Amino acid sequence: MRAGDTLPVELPDAVREAVLAPLVDHDFHPVRGDDLTRARFETLITVADAPAPPGTTHFDTPAGLAVRRWCAPVLGLDPHVPPAVYLARRAELGAAEVNRRLLRAARITAFLVDTGRDGPELLPAEEICRLDGAAAGEVAGVERAEQAVAISAVSGVSYISDLNHALADLVSRAVAFTATLPVVFDAARPSRGAVIAAANRRLAAPKEELTDPVLLRHLLWAAFDAARERGLPVRFHLPRYGPHRALAAFLGATQQFGVPVVLLGPLDGEALHLAATFPHVYVDVGSVPAHAASGAAAVGRLLELVPFHKQLFGSGGRGAAESCHLGALHWRRGLAGALAVRLAAGEWSVPDAARVALMVGSGNARRVYRL
Amino acid sequence: MRAGDTLPVELPDAVREAVLAPLVDHDFHPVRGDDLTRARFETLITVADAPAPPGTTHFDTPAGLAVRRWCAPVLGLDPHVPPAVYLARRAELGAAEVNRRLLRAARITAFLVDTGRDGPELLPAEEICRLDGAAAGEVAGVERAEQAVAISAVSGVSYISDLNHALADLVSRAVAFTATLPVVFDAARPSRGAVIAAANRRLAAPKEELTDPVLLRHLLWAAFDAARERGLPVRFHLPRYGPHRALAAFLGATQQFGVPVVLLGPLDGEALHLAATFPHVYVDVGSVPAHAASGAAAVGRLLELVPFHKQLFGSGGRGAAESCHLGALHWRRGLAGALAVRLAAGEWSVPDAARVALMVGSGNARRVYRL
Amino acid sequence: MRAGDTLPVELPDAVREAVLAPLVDHDFHPVRGDDLTRARFETLITVADAPAPPGTTHFDTPAGLAVRRWCAPVLGLDPHVPPAVYLARRAELGAAEVNRRLLRAARITAFLVDTGRDGPELLPAEEICRLDGAAAGEVAGVERAEQAVAISAVSGVSYISDLNHALADLVSRAVAFTATLPVVFDAARPSRGAVIAAANRRLAAPKEELTDPVLLRHLLWAAFDAARERGLPVRFHLPRYGPHRALAAFLGATQQFGVPVVLLGPLDGEALHLAATFPHVYVDVGSVPAHAASGAAAVGRLLELVPFHKQLFGSGGRGAAESCHLGALHWRRGLAGALAVRLAAGEWSVPDAARVALMVGSGNARRVYRL
Repeated sequence: MRAGDTLPVELPDAVREAVLAPLVDHDFHPVRGDDLTRARFETLITVADAPAPPGTTHFDTPAGLAVRRWCAPVLGLDPHVPPAVYLARRAELGAAEVNRRLLRAARITAFLVDTGRDGPELLPAEEICRLDGAAAGEVAGVERAEQAVAISAVSGVSYISDLNHALADLVSRAVAFTATLPVVFDAARPSRGAVIAAANRRLAAPKEELTDPVLLRHLLWAAFDAARERGLPVRFHLPRYGPHRALAAFLGATQQFGVPVVLLGPLDGEALHLAATFPHVYVDVGSVPAHAASGAAAVGRLLELVPFHKQLFGSGGRGAAESCHLGALHWRRGLAGALAVRLAAGEWSVPDAARVALMVGSGNARRVYRL
Repeated sequence: MRAGDTLPVELPDAVREAVLAPLVDHDFHPVRGDDLTRARFETLITVADAPAPPGTTHFDTPAGLAVRRWCAPVLGLDPHVPPAVYLARRAELGAAEVNRRLLRAARITAFLVDTGRDGPELLPAEEICRLDGAAAGEVAGVERAEQAVAISAVSGVSYISDLNHALADLVSRAVAFTATLPVVFDAARPSRGAVIAAANRRLAAPKEELTDPVLLRHLLWAAFDAARERGLPVRFHLPRYGPHRALAAFLGATQQFGVPVVLLGPLDGEALHLAATFPHVYVDVGSVPAHAASGAAAVGRLLELVPFHKQLFGSGGRGAAESCHLGALHWRRGLAGALAVRLAAGEWSVPDAARVALMVGSGNARRVYRL
Repeated sequence: MRAGDTLPVELPDAVREAVLAPLVDHDFHPVRGDDLTRARFETLITVADAPAPPGTTHFDTPAGLAVRRWCAPVLGLDPHVPPAVYLARRAELGAAEVNRRLLRAARITAFLVDTGRDGPELLPAEEICRLDGAAAGEVAGVERAEQAVAISAVSGVSYISDLNHALADLVSRAVAFTATLPVVFDAARPSRGAVIAAANRRLAAPKEELTDPVLLRHLLWAAFDAARERGLPVRFHLPRYGPHRALAAFLGATQQFGVPVVLLGPLDGEALHLAATFPHVYVDVGSVPAHAASGAAAVGRLLELVPFHKQLFGSGGRGAAESCHLGALHWRRGLAGALAVRLAAGEWSVPDAARVALMVGSGNARRVYRL
């Protein structure tokens, strides 16, 4: 199948080439390297973390239909084959070949791999890139670094210095930090005394998830300090029911650092507004079209609300290679549709359309992450 | 007028038949059986509960235009007739004939009737079904049951047992419970002592609306306990300015019960996400297209965000038969448009499109409500 | 260039004329009368208040592309000229000629000018109208009036009476009040004692921005009292992260006054719902299409959610005449697209479409502001 066949509209050659050009995927998470049962596969392709109710299947979801429609041909099947046929073919080819085919067909030239939650069954970043012939960079999760420090630190005082060292170590090899923003938080940097007191409590149960609000805030500030040293971006996974007001205050307080902040997650109008307002704030756009009524409308909304130099493509791939493949495919299809509408209405010129496609697809990521 | 004439697009026969197939209306509220003045009619067709400002009319609303466009032909008038002509024809035919025509033309095979707020001027469910040749089931409002218990109970202790008996009695004849979710609430089950103390206060003013947070929470938990006995669903009317975080916690705490939860009301992205995430959570889709820019985009958004087996058609009909007729019409038109787009783009197959239309239109409701 | 050339669709003559008819711009802010540097111009055309990051430009935004596409021809250039060419032509013509061309081409018959934040470099309202041959009315900011009172009042007691006098004075010459709604507020009218106490504190630092919650509430209530005397509307700029629940309570408490309330700012579904529910609440619609994926969808959403007699066109023009020109152009284009869709689907009649275009474009503003 020729790559261009997956675009839903006719485009001028220059625009078409820009839309189909190799992408930098700045939001990729490891995928599994083992063969998957149907139950496991169904869970990986949806946001649910439980089996579908009796009498139903997770294939009866937008993602399930998309797998059958778009991934089946990559495995040599007809579009729309039944789930059982798809899974049988997947087993027949084996996980390594399936991963290789789906990732290659996504045409991604570099993966920035979020290693926050990898496990033994997940392929490490280097192996994914070997599959695909792509480059890779590590996006380091600060929560994971904190936990290692909490386990090894001997006192609240050493917790602070150990954390600084651990973050400095990460900064020397990662291309960015990633953190999950707390739902409720205070933008101010906590005092050293408060951090030491909280850290002393933390050391009693270092293996639990970090929930102490003082330490969460300290972790954010420590990460910013470390990132600032080398101009590394910090990425925030936004929680649902979002802390926009606190986030705006925090962004105001850190604007002077020159540390780029990249927002990921459910991006509502408020999050997009932050990227339009603050010069150091960027947004991930990859997950939008796959979760919206129509790719062209969803990408078009971003093109109306966010400066073009602030948007970064990410596949959001995670767990199954299908998710990465579909992330790239949906974004390209949505972008093609949005650009076609603007070109047909005479609102955009062809050179602008091609230029913006390249900026969002790879150029902005190269600049922000210094690739 | 042939039913199919109301669809805005051409569809393959199998899809067209599925879109036009009889619906199960899981969210119907009684309509008035008496003849209506213009002032009363204007109020019934809008969300406002007051007359329009001087110099204006509630007919100058989306709903007002839709009544003139779509309901007028059902009463034998041309589309777009002036409001006065429509109302004169309505009076000429009489309320019974108008209700019969509008409900029959909606092609609904079963009404689940929310009896939470019926009054003497409203037609009882059985009579509506007699008009329409449809089956009916009762959706029982728990607030109403609670008030009867508050009036008759002799103590805080008996309040608890009386409420359990009242809910058990409802469970034996209703197809579901319905409750309005408080704007602010705590997900945890309150202690028996706290409930007794609050109930003792409640007994002093039982005719007032229930606002005590402990008793509201107790009512939710008691309703879940009663529903669990017979596998009945519980329906939540979501308030505006929604309590999504508390609701997510409550859903997490009740997931193990196996009680289906159906969300109704203003469904924002967060509510849709709950249905995508929790295996026991469903959403009402009927009210969406009537309140969105374009039916096809609104229905399409649901088809991108919510598993197909989690969506339930409901007309949201209430007060005037026009609202039920338009609820069904807008949903069918929106669905037809959304499916046509997906078929034209090669994203969905014809059998999938027909199957999903039947699932949302009636199949899911039959399964969830055990009809 | 003929005005109609900017519409994206064919329309019946009556509808086309209504869409292109002169507008009442109820949300206009002064524009600068001096020649602008590139840095200054870039900041004025975006929501950001800082220069674009190194290697980027604010022209790479939706607004930047729109300036090059739509304003360039008004200055006699080809569409899509590079930013440098546009700015050179702007300098060549001079600010006065540029302002005159852009405002005239917007075809606005009356400006309601929000004078809340004018400064020495901004053109006064009268001069703008002289440029354009249009009428003007003043929309008076209550915060500015309050600050003058705080500076001159001699005691907390006289603060109250001075404020009443200042507002009464404004009421006699302005067409409306405008206020920025606090993010958090209580709907109840504060007691006289509480206001006096807070005012005494306020007098110590009268030049600071008013943040005292009691005085902010008092200011709202005093403005309502003054507006009520002459039936003047009060306009609320909604903050982001909006106080919808408190606002709903406040609207409920003031509904009896008969004072029209106009909501401006980021209008989410909740704000639109308030306009649909409360008979005295109106919404500004001008800023919507410029900030949404597609003008037709954005205007169409308003036509589905808000009664037609509740919508008021405003350009949101501010700082640069380009913003006013684009506000009018985007609204007309979006409206044309939304009406074309409804006419093609047979949902609206031609007379209704023309009538609604005139209502939103100018008729509603004439009625509400008593022009």
